Amino acid sequence: MNDVIQILKKYSESIDNEINESLSTISPQALRDSSIHLISAGGKKLRPSLVVLSCEAVGGKPDYSFKTASAMELIHTFSLIHDDIMDKDDMRRGEPSVHVLWGEPMAILAGDTLFSKAFETVLRTEIEESFHKRINETLAVVVDSCIKICEGQACDMSFEGNFDVKESEYMNMIYKKTGALIAASTKAGAIMGGGTSEQVDALFEYGKLIGLAFQIQDDYLDVVSDEESIGKPVGSDIVEGKMTLMVVKALAEASEDDKDTLITILKENNPQRVDEAIAIFNKYGSIQYAHDIALSNVKKAKELLNILDDSEAKNALILIADFVLQRQH
Amino acid sequence: MNDVIQILKKYSESIDNEINESLSTISPQALRDSSIHLISAGGKKLRPSLVVLSCEAVGGKPDYSFKTASAMELIHTFSLIHDDIMDKDDMRRGEPSVHVLWGEPMAILAGDTLFSKAFETVLRTEIEESFHKRINETLAVVVDSCIKICEGQACDMSFEGNFDVKESEYMNMIYKKTGALIAASTKAGAIMGGGTSEQVDALFEYGKLIGLAFQIQDDYLDVVSDEESIGKPVGSDIVEGKMTLMVVKALAEASEDDKDTLITILKENNPQRVDEAIAIFNKYGSIQYAHDIALSNVKKAKELLNILDDSEAKNALILIADFVLQRQH
Repeated sequence: MNDVIQILKKYSESIDNEINESLSTISPQALRDSSIHLISAGGKKLRPSLVVLSCEAVGGKPDYSFKTASAMELIHTFSLIHDDIMDKDDMRRGEPSVHVLWGEPMAILAGDTLFSKAFETVLRTEIEESFHKRINETLAVVVDSCIKICEGQACDMSFEGNFDVKESEYMNMIYKKTGALIAASTKAGAIMGGGTSEQVDALFEYGKLIGLAFQIQDDYLDVVSDEESIGKPVGSDIVEGKMTLMVVKALAEASEDDKDTLITILKENNPQRVDEAIAIFNKYGSIQYAHDIALSNVKKAKELLNILDDSEAKNALILIADFVLQRQH
Repeated sequence: MNDVIQILKKYSESIDNEINESLSTISPQALRDSSIHLISAGGKKLRPSLVVLSCEAVGGKPDYSFKTASAMELIHTFSLIHDDIMDKDDMRRGEPSVHVLWGEPMAILAGDTLFSKAFETVLRTEIEESFHKRINETLAVVVDSCIKICEGQACDMSFEGNFDVKESEYMNMIYKKTGALIAASTKAGAIMGGGTSEQVDALFEYGKLIGLAFQIQDDYLDVVSDEESIGKPVGSDIVEGKMTLMVVKALAEASEDDKDTLITILKENNPQRVDEAIAIFNKYGSIQYAHDIALSNVKKAKELLNILDDSEAKNALILIADFVLQRQH
């Protein structure tokens, strides 16, 4: 755990500097302040660190990728700002959301500005003439993940009140919504670092697998952890009627009666019935099933790294894969 | 007029095909439909045509720039969708706005998707290896205009209820909000066409000048035209209390009494007092002033084209500059 915190801290300053430089020229001030707000509120910097580590793991210099790394954090932040408007989430990173402080119109604009700034930042990579091709390839990866984020959010919205979602549809949704940007981070880093196409592909798959494991573990912790560790009541997802792998699996396996009961609980927003829902999950092995998939994803992700020469960066990527399952929130 | 309609039609099909291809893969369907809606509703295709004409005017083949041209239309559409949410405009191009038909969350996503698709489209330009640099430079131009659009909209919002806006501040706002994307269209076309840096700069300035003239002429027509021509009551901008060059100029020149009267009218939303406001504009010559600036911009824009060899595309650019002042809506 502490190792990973150190790893994520290592490049934080360089990335923060890039981002601050990029955002400092925005005017008028309300747009600048609203664009900077959520970034100033912190965040783990997982995605940008994965960019730089992937760049180094294929033999690139870290400064080949700092601007791309910053871009990934900008895109992550843009998507959080717009998601919070769509989902009417009023708090983020312990602070009021951008739309709460500046209103929805300015929050929409702040997101759009960060989105633009992400591309600008990648394009400001000042290396050699020969890097134009790498930059274009990187931008194609970034853009692809942006489209997937939008599609994933739209999919998630379309699942609301739909209890016939198939496991493959659910996995596709969380891949687009959460996995795609993490996979794009590792892939973009590998491209900027000049990796071979095999290395680029392996790091993309690594990112995709840990991204999915990350989301599944999040949902898993909601039912097996305690309130103190996750910072919210156990079973919050159940009370909110959120679609998770455990819900999808239980609904697919359950008897008609149990299925009806689970759907009723999910629609009911009643904290009193969390234990009942968890009992149904357990009856059909869906909690264990979700945990097994997260474990297996992390195992496969680490195996994919065998293609890389040994390095500090490779070790860090292994530790980050394990961290996905170790974290408590 | 008819000449220009023919010019704008010339590339419409190629551009529509590019856009349709680009958007056809979006899923789920609600996101695809909401993303396509406003583009299907039509539009003049001014920006994409300017891209292709600028490409040809510096000696490039039109197909060097079709994807960039389509990207400009996608960005224009993205900004209209988000603006309509922010400004609570319920109609656009004779159809209900995207947020009216699909709700705000889906409309935010549709805008974000078109934004991403714009970059994807430029990056799909399949020409030669040597084009990577041109694509990088073009993307930098596109991104710069996206940031300016956001800044311009934020500026416009900050002007609401502020009657101390200076002429330079107003011009900067409309440049960012309207001129920047038109200037980026001509510049990007010139870059993709392989223009010299002088040609690229001249076409950028040309775009900026006609973009500003376009906006000023819009505001001018609101007070000098008739309801039938502009498709809305004369003086709508006055009733809405909109900031225009005529308002800025009149407020700067007027006596305290006339200034107070004009501000009262702008705050009042009263169609009965349109004539009174127009009388104040005329008293301080602000209608003529706005018209003179639009005329002078168009004249300068056409002069800048002298740097180009004679060609059909150059002639078309001259006609488009004139069209900015001839159009009635």
